[in-house]
Amino acid sequence: MKKISILGSTGSIGVNTLDVIERNPDQFEIVGLAAGSNVDLLCQQVQKYRPKIAALFDTTKLEELRRRLNGQQVEIVGGQDGSVQVASLPETDLVISGMVGCAGLVPSFAAVSAGKTLALANKETLVVAGEVILREAEKNGVSIIPVDSEHSAIFQALNGEDPKRIRRIILTASGGPFRAFSVEQMESVTVEDALKHPNWDMGAKITIDSATMMNKGLEFIEAKWLFGLDTQIDIIVHAQSIIHSMIEFVDTSIMAQMGIPDMRVPIAYAMTYPDRLDCDLPSLDLSAMGDLTFEQPDFIRFPCLRLAHEVMDAGKTLPAVLNAANEIAVQAFLDRQIGYKEIPELIESTLDRHQPHSADTIEDVLTADDWARNEARQLLTAKA
Amino acid sequence: MKKISILGSTGSIGVNTLDVIERNPDQFEIVGLAAGSNVDLLCQQVQKYRPKIAALFDTTKLEELRRRLNGQQVEIVGGQDGSVQVASLPETDLVISGMVGCAGLVPSFAAVSAGKTLALANKETLVVAGEVILREAEKNGVSIIPVDSEHSAIFQALNGEDPKRIRRIILTASGGPFRAFSVEQMESVTVEDALKHPNWDMGAKITIDSATMMNKGLEFIEAKWLFGLDTQIDIIVHAQSIIHSMIEFVDTSIMAQMGIPDMRVPIAYAMTYPDRLDCDLPSLDLSAMGDLTFEQPDFIRFPCLRLAHEVMDAGKTLPAVLNAANEIAVQAFLDRQIGYKEIPELIESTLDRHQPHSADTIEDVLTADDWARNEARQLLTAKA
Repeated sequence: MKKISILGSTGSIGVNTLDVIERNPDQFEIVGLAAGSNVDLLCQQVQKYRPKIAALFDTTKLEELRRRLNGQQVEIVGGQDGSVQVASLPETDLVISGMVGCAGLVPSFAAVSAGKTLALANKETLVVAGEVILREAEKNGVSIIPVDSEHSAIFQALNGEDPKRIRRIILTASGGPFRAFSVEQMESVTVEDALKHPNWDMGAKITIDSATMMNKGLEFIEAKWLFGLDTQIDIIVHAQSIIHSMIEFVDTSIMAQMGIPDMRVPIAYAMTYPDRLDCDLPSLDLSAMGDLTFEQPDFIRFPCLRLAHEVMDAGKTLPAVLNAANEIAVQAFLDRQIGYKEIPELIESTLDRHQPHSADTIEDVLTADDWARNEARQLLTAKA
Repeated sequence: MKKISILGSTGSIGVNTLDVIERNPDQFEIVGLAAGSNVDLLCQQVQKYRPKIAALFDTTKLEELRRRLNGQQVEIVGGQDGSVQVASLPETDLVISGMVGCAGLVPSFAAVSAGKTLALANKETLVVAGEVILREAEKNGVSIIPVDSEHSAIFQALNGEDPKRIRRIILTASGGPFRAFSVEQMESVTVEDALKHPNWDMGAKITIDSATMMNKGLEFIEAKWLFGLDTQIDIIVHAQSIIHSMIEFVDTSIMAQMGIPDMRVPIAYAMTYPDRLDCDLPSLDLSAMGDLTFEQPDFIRFPCLRLAHEVMDAGKTLPAVLNAANEIAVQAFLDRQIGYKEIPELIESTLDRHQPHSADTIEDVLTADDWARNEARQLLTAKA
């Protein structure tokens, strides 16, 4: 029986993880749940899965949670310290990190420090603090298993292979809803347009990141940390999102992982690796689906992709600043403060003002993150 | 230094194997070569690669070979016994079995009996004598590594995985040059039409088998033996031959092997498995190729596919009879004795006349093979 803690239990990854667990009650047991602010769903989850500990990041709602779970056998904790407690609970075997944004960093680091196997869906953790997290993982002999469908695909393609034999990684991108839009068409894009992802049903932040292709930029940076900074990583636009990513080996063989767009598949893989779980889901019907297409990504129409490549090359605190400025920009777009095309502009302006420094510690990273958020907010205010 | 013997050195597989060896002289050494009747090429190969032993199946040309290699340090042998000697040479580590047709059976069996790792490109070996060969391989602790691009793809997708977690194997088929032909169009197909394979450059027999899709039928039977008789194997028509085959696992994940259509890739994989060789070949350019398409196979327009499924279900000596009758039928077609549509008719008539018996020994299989060839020839004579 594998004991699981979930960071971000009420989000998309959390809910899908709980579904996998519910279908396989003989294999998994929930011991910790950490949520952001969704008291209703966290209450239901605690009552159903009976964890030892439940954390709510939003401390203003902590009293409400306590009141509603009165009489329930569960320790209730709040704030970032609460998430850290869930991440480092002694009985936990595996921590699923499914929080959105930079908030996932500190609890993910805590999980690695506590020697827990980390199933990582929070891409910001490696984007902003790749060096710190990987050093800590190595120190503690901890495995980091990616959950993002693309990184899971690469991880699966690498199973049984010698990483030294990789010629290049081919990261697939759907291209998002604006894949075929001209620069002019992008001028008038609305929040509603950007929230319509063609293939995956995800949260608002990551859906906007897919539209700008910043999501692919962040995945590019995450893949560099996961699979080797010296590894060549090419991005290819594959609108159907059927092939989730590929590895080309030195013999020119390409191993690809394909499948239905269902996050339970990579989640279950991370939970059972190197074994596979019978997921009781329908097979991909290759002959019923349309043709598979591939095209080169466009770094002009999607400047977020270019920015991500640039900060990965430059390193230091720049990826943390990119990520923080992107979070502010996406929120401003969702709040209708700025237009779609201003998202990369705000990020680039913030990056231009940054004095990069080393990203050797969590504090270094958090300082840069904090600086970038303030700077981006000031730029927004100046604009308004 | 891996010591290699090649059965069928002057054929397509043999020539490609020698190319891989020539590019990697520090890793491989040729110790034995066996050819059918191409004296010119075998002479050149002996002079270039200096094997200890060279065999020519066609004994009528043996004297010519001896004369032309006069003074060369090589043992020259002939007939089936000669191929068997090459297959079981004590110093050989790995035997590449690249002969065409049923002629590959006895030397392949000899290689397995002698405890050699067998890189198997001769699909007839398993089609006609799967049970005998696998029993002998198990007895001698011998690995059989498939070289056919489809079976190599499946073998690669299985690397690092638990075979018990396979949901189904998806064997891809190009569909050959007549993929989109109506039944009426097939009536007037010529030998020249059938010899034009859209994706692969292969010998005449296998090219005709691709046109009738008997090649896929034989591969279906071979895959059953290689990957488990109880494993579900679906055939899907994928005209571009970019995905060479796939495995769907119980979690619905599909692992696919893709690549350029170059036999040196699966040959090199079989020669270095579980490692991979730097092949110094160009990468597949996904964005430059056309769309990838998938469709269900048509068992009506391609009756050879139906016959292969039927004989695999019925077992015993029926696959051997199917294969032998197919060899006679294809030769008769190439010799313009019969039309394209008569190929499956001749095979089915031969199968209908067969009294199936057990295929427990090489003798059982060879008896059935011999019977089927005679029967098919008589049917041809009766027709003429």
